Amino acid sequence: MKRLASKLREVVGARGVIDDPTLLLPYESDGLAMMQVDAELVVLPRTTDEAARCFRILHADKVPIVARGAGTGLAGGATPVEGGVVVSTARMRDVLEVDFEDRFARVQAGVVNVDLSHACGQGGLMYAPDPSSQMACTIGGNVANNSGGPHCFKYGATTRHILGLVLVTHDGRVIDLSEPVVDPVGYDLVGLFVGSEGTFGLATEVTVRLVPTPPVVEVLLAIFPDLDGACDSVTDIIAARLEPSALEILDRLTIEAVEKSVFAAGYPREAEAVLLIEVEGVECEVASTTREIRAILEGHATLEIRTARDARERRQLWAGRKGAFGAMGRVAPDLYVADAVVPRTKLRELVRKTVEICAERDLLLANVFHAGDGNLHPNICYDRRDADEVKRVLEAGHLILETCVAAGGSLTGEHGVGLEKRAEMELLFTPSDLDTMCRVRDVWDPERRMNPDKLVPLHACGELRTMPPREDAR
Amino acid sequence: MKRLASKLREVVGARGVIDDPTLLLPYESDGLAMMQVDAELVVLPRTTDEAARCFRILHADKVPIVARGAGTGLAGGATPVEGGVVVSTARMRDVLEVDFEDRFARVQAGVVNVDLSHACGQGGLMYAPDPSSQMACTIGGNVANNSGGPHCFKYGATTRHILGLVLVTHDGRVIDLSEPVVDPVGYDLVGLFVGSEGTFGLATEVTVRLVPTPPVVEVLLAIFPDLDGACDSVTDIIAARLEPSALEILDRLTIEAVEKSVFAAGYPREAEAVLLIEVEGVECEVASTTREIRAILEGHATLEIRTARDARERRQLWAGRKGAFGAMGRVAPDLYVADAVVPRTKLRELVRKTVEICAERDLLLANVFHAGDGNLHPNICYDRRDADEVKRVLEAGHLILETCVAAGGSLTGEHGVGLEKRAEMELLFTPSDLDTMCRVRDVWDPERRMNPDKLVPLHACGELRTMPPREDAR
Repeated sequence: MKRLASKLREVVGARGVIDDPTLLLPYESDGLAMMQVDAELVVLPRTTDEAARCFRILHADKVPIVARGAGTGLAGGATPVEGGVVVSTARMRDVLEVDFEDRFARVQAGVVNVDLSHACGQGGLMYAPDPSSQMACTIGGNVANNSGGPHCFKYGATTRHILGLVLVTHDGRVIDLSEPVVDPVGYDLVGLFVGSEGTFGLATEVTVRLVPTPPVVEVLLAIFPDLDGACDSVTDIIAARLEPSALEILDRLTIEAVEKSVFAAGYPREAEAVLLIEVEGVECEVASTTREIRAILEGHATLEIRTARDARERRQLWAGRKGAFGAMGRVAPDLYVADAVVPRTKLRELVRKTVEICAERDLLLANVFHAGDGNLHPNICYDRRDADEVKRVLEAGHLILETCVAAGGSLTGEHGVGLEKRAEMELLFTPSDLDTMCRVRDVWDPERRMNPDKLVPLHACGELRTMPPREDAR
Repeated sequence: MKRLASKLREVVGARGVIDDPTLLLPYESDGLAMMQVDAELVVLPRTTDEAARCFRILHADKVPIVARGAGTGLAGGATPVEGGVVVSTARMRDVLEVDFEDRFARVQAGVVNVDLSHACGQGGLMYAPDPSSQMACTIGGNVANNSGGPHCFKYGATTRHILGLVLVTHDGRVIDLSEPVVDPVGYDLVGLFVGSEGTFGLATEVTVRLVPTPPVVEVLLAIFPDLDGACDSVTDIIAARLEPSALEILDRLTIEAVEKSVFAAGYPREAEAVLLIEVEGVECEVASTTREIRAILEGHATLEIRTARDARERRQLWAGRKGAFGAMGRVAPDLYVADAVVPRTKLRELVRKTVEICAERDLLLANVFHAGDGNLHPNICYDRRDADEVKRVLEAGHLILETCVAAGGSLTGEHGVGLEKRAEMELLFTPSDLDTMCRVRDVWDPERRMNPDKLVPLHACGELRTMPPREDAR
């Protein structure tokens, strides 16, 4: 590693390589804190060319590579791999081009999600996908995980917004798919890359679609005496063909945590659930949709319906939702964020099941989720120093996924598979499907050095190395 | 072929195999009539299982396979290949399931596009992508070509609407990716398959997303004394952030052809261009959007703006657009429909260039296109018996694509690459990109028996067979 570090420094400069054990500490995990592996070396290229040169150096020594954006991922996609090098995009923060007429932007992969929206906001455009971590997470990380966010209910997840990519492959080749092409020509390699979780290569530049900011926005907060009423309201709003731009539910434990934190949003502590609703469009459309939504909410025994009166109040109502994960730090030292998708017609039933599964295992559960998308986020608050509790958390996580898949749902809405859900891939895919995935992976990285061990169950790819048991975490 | 035919008959019955030369005639080409190859054998399975059994028989003899839906494709994707068998989905016409609550349908690949919308219409849902050929084209063909249509301006092309697939690969394996998963888990194999033009395998069942039919629809027809005004109106409507659901331009020659045909829509023959605009949504939204669009149209010296008063008039205004390609039969025996995409800010400039390119070659050009998407369709009317004219048509087609790509556009909006645009793939992709495509193709079909010669330039895939020159057509 020493020799490698000095070779890499020749490309990226002294500040571009981290090998001091103390400075490496933050890289031991991403948001899936229960799985930690010591990072041995981190390299931070500034450009596509630097990244390609670094990759060629690593290729010569057959060193595994783990790409990392902001490390906010929740499935272990950026967890280091033993004997490997972490390539961070933290110094690739330039917005290269914003085209307000044809509505696209070209950015370096390390640009922070919210910075991109700021860069195009003055022209009345925005980048629609808005993960809760948008203040920190990067566009490259969003590409890797096909990230979602509250507004993806209306606008669709990241994959719908990526028009082009520049990639570096394991051997340091640059593949330029950066043309902002709305309709893919030939095989949709850009679409295939989105969601590949760093197993194909490193995206260094991303061309994204921008959309007009809506002329009028209304934010409602409906307060419920039980979680069922909030779930049923969402099901009914969708059945009535109303199209708000976001539908988010927070339960009592989440509300408590948020209200005790710096993200205090004025959510009433006596509520069992709140439903945050955003409606956007032209003025009369917003008014009519809001009116119909109110009627549905009133039919579900809401305690109260609040409407934000101005931009400041809208921001405040949203602050609680966006800060919810951070606020959970007040409840327990660690947080396990599950990410299952269920048919929206079965919201109530499956949310109840997550509550039961956690109660049976004496686990503290906070539910905060993209209800409109049927994307549950059961958050289990725990302490990773308690080995027995960690075991119960993983058991509950697995059971929740199994239950959701059995109900016609899916494994992940937006956080990816990473290390966390490799085993569960077999709930959804046959060996033959997984074999096809492995062969697709081999097209990009025949040596399996890009984020090895992630996404696809290893034995499906005929890997010789065995999968480390999950409880192996430090 | 005789022996093969009798083996296949054992699987699909006597009516499921065509080997009579007269009955084979319609299969000699798809909508790209200038390229014809005799079909030697056509097999028509009724189910996934029958298709898989047929594929295993063909696999044993290493016979190339060309999949065919309705044969309405315009790029030669369904042109037979010498020594190969055509597998038609014409007897796979069952709508297997419509889920009105979770809004998806599962259909056999041979279901006709418009039949799917009929099957879910009574529940207030529709399948959004609506190619002009929707009365005939199949969902499987739409998947192969990632087809568009006028309403894809609002709803996006086919790829946005495909939730799952059941596939048969070259060796007769069945891959079941039919779960209606909104957010792909792992690599997006379904997304990758969409647009693969039959080179990966045969889709036998398709799970599609359904969307609510809009509550209110308004159709406007703006009549212009020149084509520029129509193009500029589209550019301005988009710049003003108005979001109609369709924006279609027809030029004078198209209007003449339509008005002489059974599709007569009452378009005024003195116009140089008409712009067909559809607006949908809730009532007040439609009213306000329509008002703003009218103001823009009036600023561009329209001769007249008509509004359809009821569903019958709306259908009539649309009939001309949907029937335009058919109506061209009155102008010349053959029609070459180009399919280039250009930045929407350069519509006027590039439409003018197509007019110039055709005028210089003494070719009759009709322009009818998805203006909102920047998806040009220069239609060159010609007679394929005139070898010199065919040569000029191909030259003009190539030059139009080259011009559009040079202006930042793309090769195909919705018709695919097929046989027609293989050479032009190199305008858009480097050898390294094409090599990646070839390797992705090899994952699915390592023997390259699925629609060989299509989509990817052969030499890029290291094929030994040489590409037949285009003028080879009969």
